[in-house]
Amino acid sequence: MAISDSDSLNFLIIGAGAVGSIFAWRLQHAGNNVDIVCRSNYEAVLQNGFQISSFQFGPTTFKPNRVHKSLVDASLSKVVYDYILVCTKSLPNIHSPADVLEGIDLGSAAIVLIQNGIGIEVPFYKRFPGNALISSITYIDTKQVESGVIEHGDSADLSFGIYDPDNRFSEESTDHTLLLLQKALLEGGIKPKINRQIQIERWYKVVWNASFNPISVVSGASNTVQLLSDPRMEALIIRAMREIISVAETYLGTSLSPEIDSSEIPERYIAMTRKRPEPVFPSMMVDYVNKRPMEHQVILKAPIDVAKSLNIDVPVLESIYAILVHLENKQLNQ
Amino acid sequence: MAISDSDSLNFLIIGAGAVGSIFAWRLQHAGNNVDIVCRSNYEAVLQNGFQISSFQFGPTTFKPNRVHKSLVDASLSKVVYDYILVCTKSLPNIHSPADVLEGIDLGSAAIVLIQNGIGIEVPFYKRFPGNALISSITYIDTKQVESGVIEHGDSADLSFGIYDPDNRFSEESTDHTLLLLQKALLEGGIKPKINRQIQIERWYKVVWNASFNPISVVSGASNTVQLLSDPRMEALIIRAMREIISVAETYLGTSLSPEIDSSEIPERYIAMTRKRPEPVFPSMMVDYVNKRPMEHQVILKAPIDVAKSLNIDVPVLESIYAILVHLENKQLNQ
Repeated sequence: MAISDSDSLNFLIIGAGAVGSIFAWRLQHAGNNVDIVCRSNYEAVLQNGFQISSFQFGPTTFKPNRVHKSLVDASLSKVVYDYILVCTKSLPNIHSPADVLEGIDLGSAAIVLIQNGIGIEVPFYKRFPGNALISSITYIDTKQVESGVIEHGDSADLSFGIYDPDNRFSEESTDHTLLLLQKALLEGGIKPKINRQIQIERWYKVVWNASFNPISVVSGASNTVQLLSDPRMEALIIRAMREIISVAETYLGTSLSPEIDSSEIPERYIAMTRKRPEPVFPSMMVDYVNKRPMEHQVILKAPIDVAKSLNIDVPVLESIYAILVHLENKQLNQ
Repeated sequence: MAISDSDSLNFLIIGAGAVGSIFAWRLQHAGNNVDIVCRSNYEAVLQNGFQISSFQFGPTTFKPNRVHKSLVDASLSKVVYDYILVCTKSLPNIHSPADVLEGIDLGSAAIVLIQNGIGIEVPFYKRFPGNALISSITYIDTKQVESGVIEHGDSADLSFGIYDPDNRFSEESTDHTLLLLQKALLEGGIKPKINRQIQIERWYKVVWNASFNPISVVSGASNTVQLLSDPRMEALIIRAMREIISVAETYLGTSLSPEIDSSEIPERYIAMTRKRPEPVFPSMMVDYVNKRPMEHQVILKAPIDVAKSLNIDVPVLESIYAILVHLENKQLNQ
């Protein structure tokens, strides 16, 4: 990255839904240039910007510096981007995830993946070997209630680290890239955390996602309150979590949490979910109900594949995955 | 039983749906007196009898000797029954199964249970210690297309044996009871088979029922052709079958089939199901679609309970059971 720390940065946000729009807004608020590639909400955002009602930051109308319909459009603006944030769903079962970056000269931009799941970095790492790749996990309570209209709660955290298993980049250069992003986020009111062991955190988060998400679908679209008021479903969720934890710890060669015993993670997650003031509608359930493809490849299938490669039996995850994909196929073929 | 072999027999059929009506018809055809307790189809059957279209036996209108609305009504007829055939669903999670025999003096009637599942005999054996109890499995292709209107295919087999774990009855007396029933069925064109190891056959049949039935429901009401055209669902069915077989063989202390290796049972069942000229709509799926309670207690939960008592892990069966009951509860609370 050829910019000095005092310059404002150029950000491109790809996939400006509930998550991407909040990061875009806060980064612009911090004084940066923020362009956005919108798809389904392009017309609405171009006309009116984003109408954001945020408990944490207040209400606003947020207008990105530029709204693009595609990456090819964005390239016509000739802006040299420092960071490209990918906030789309990861659907490798439907299209190659790295395709979202086709159509523009990436230059020396760092690619920041703000996505759930396991193995999401691989296609980007292979396709763009010259660009630093940042893998991140967000904890944010936000939803797009209609095109360009966002409701945001009281949290917007980003935990991130470099993905560079082959050590293509020096620690010095990646540190610079991480710190600059951290500073920009901080100035925008986002709580950033640089995590040198971001893969552990990814797996930790997938423990919740790979259990609650698909089980909310196969249970006939039950939210977290409905699921947790059925003791059998609670037991099923815990069992699914235990399978994921076992895979994760074998794969990573370390325990998932330095503070708590792994055997307690499921009950902690359950207790945390129970404490939520409102029922949670897991994203897969929302996608299923709206007849959109679900992120089951990176959230559920990838961990199952890792389990297979390690000869770990995951019968609950496999059962749920089979039913989930069968339901999806029925719906898409209707 | 105080009757001679040459007398015609008095049968009472409880639950005259698709299965009960065919047995009733054929037993009457053999020269016996056949009374029926009807519930949902009482009015239709009282007015018009059963309209039966049978591939095996031809079309007919079958009028039972007496049609009763309840067992109390039946008792007013003062007929002394030799055999009482129980052809209702077994739903111990909803009401005590032996309650279907309340309201009548059973005398020395033999009770014949024509029902699927595991452990179905226990409530009858406890409640009616003075009556011989016959446990049976039927292989019959029949459905009630509307009230009192039955479509029957080309098979009507009954395999049966005495249930008497405490040896309350002498072998001589139970043999007499079984042989007399066999003769009556044979004369009615039913293929009867006396099986001294009827429990092995029950478990063998439940291998199909505990897998295809609930999986057809949790898959969003998929029939056998839809299930078997999805390789993941086929694998799930096979895995569920393997769990049941393992439980069955440990519980019974013997292999499920004298002829074929147990490891081949799932593929045999799958091949047999594929060969059916029409898709099969498993009974649980039909009940679920019609918002009726499903027989998951005796078909799925009872084997899971046996597994637990034997410390056998059955994660696939438990996962499917949890989802199934959750779906049922949602439907019944709607």
